[in-house]
Amino acid sequence: MQQALTQARLAAEAGEVPIGAVIVKDGAVIAAAHNRPRGLCDPTAHAEILALRAAAKALGQERLEGCDLWVSLEPCAMCAGAIAHARIARVYYAAPDPKGGAVAQGARVFDQPQCLHRPEVYSGMGEVEAADMLREFFRARR
Amino acid sequence: MQQALTQARLAAEAGEVPIGAVIVKDGAVIAAAHNRPRGLCDPTAHAEILALRAAAKALGQERLEGCDLWVSLEPCAMCAGAIAHARIARVYYAAPDPKGGAVAQGARVFDQPQCLHRPEVYSGMGEVEAADMLREFFRARR
Repeated sequence: MQQALTQARLAAEAGEVPIGAVIVKDGAVIAAAHNRPRGLCDPTAHAEILALRAAAKALGQERLEGCDLWVSLEPCAMCAGAIAHARIARVYYAAPDPKGGAVAQGARVFDQPQCLHRPEVYSGMGEVEAADMLREFFRARR
Repeated sequence: MQQALTQARLAAEAGEVPIGAVIVKDGAVIAAAHNRPRGLCDPTAHAEILALRAAAKALGQERLEGCDLWVSLEPCAMCAGAIAHARIARVYYAAPDPKGGAVAQGARVFDQPQCLHRPEVYSGMGEVEAADMLREFFRARR
């Protein structure tokens, strides 16, 4: 999770909402990314999406079976859907997101009968640091 | 919708699940794409995601206000979330998707309080053609 938080810090330094993600397979980080919708001019460029795409490219396969995703904030509906499509085995997220989360609240994407793959989900590790970073980012911009 | 169905046909010819999407702004098509997760080795490469990314690049902005998305199948949770992030004004989809849809069923992404932008949604135009194409694709692969 520390590496996901480091990615989140990189996002903040680039003026993007500080969210970071890494993907791990067999104990090794195979992809790391931070939120970049503004920089890439891409509404889908959340940390998770960029990490999933990079990991799929690295492995040469569209499905990431046996891979874990670590992310600093609860995934939104778009990212949760992508995580399911990619067949990610385990999702670890730091802070819950009452405003946009779609795992433990809202759309609860993994709990729907239409969800074809449900990863194991764990949360809370690094929560304070991740939430503080987001709060500080938005406070500085108000 | 005919152009979205043409894109779906291109997907089938490439061995991808036949789903196509186009994005229209001020009466002009600014992006067209078909489903390509296998070809691009990218679990996020649904027709809608590729079309949204291409349109954002074409316009030089991450938000697609005033743009309409036409797609041959009801969007999944990932694509519905991306449509909301992109601020698409209107979504027109041909066939409903009981197995993976997240607009009129399942996650119902646009109906969640966490959804920050809800497009107008219309469906049914081209439904028979879109559904036939999908049925034929999967039948030929059985």
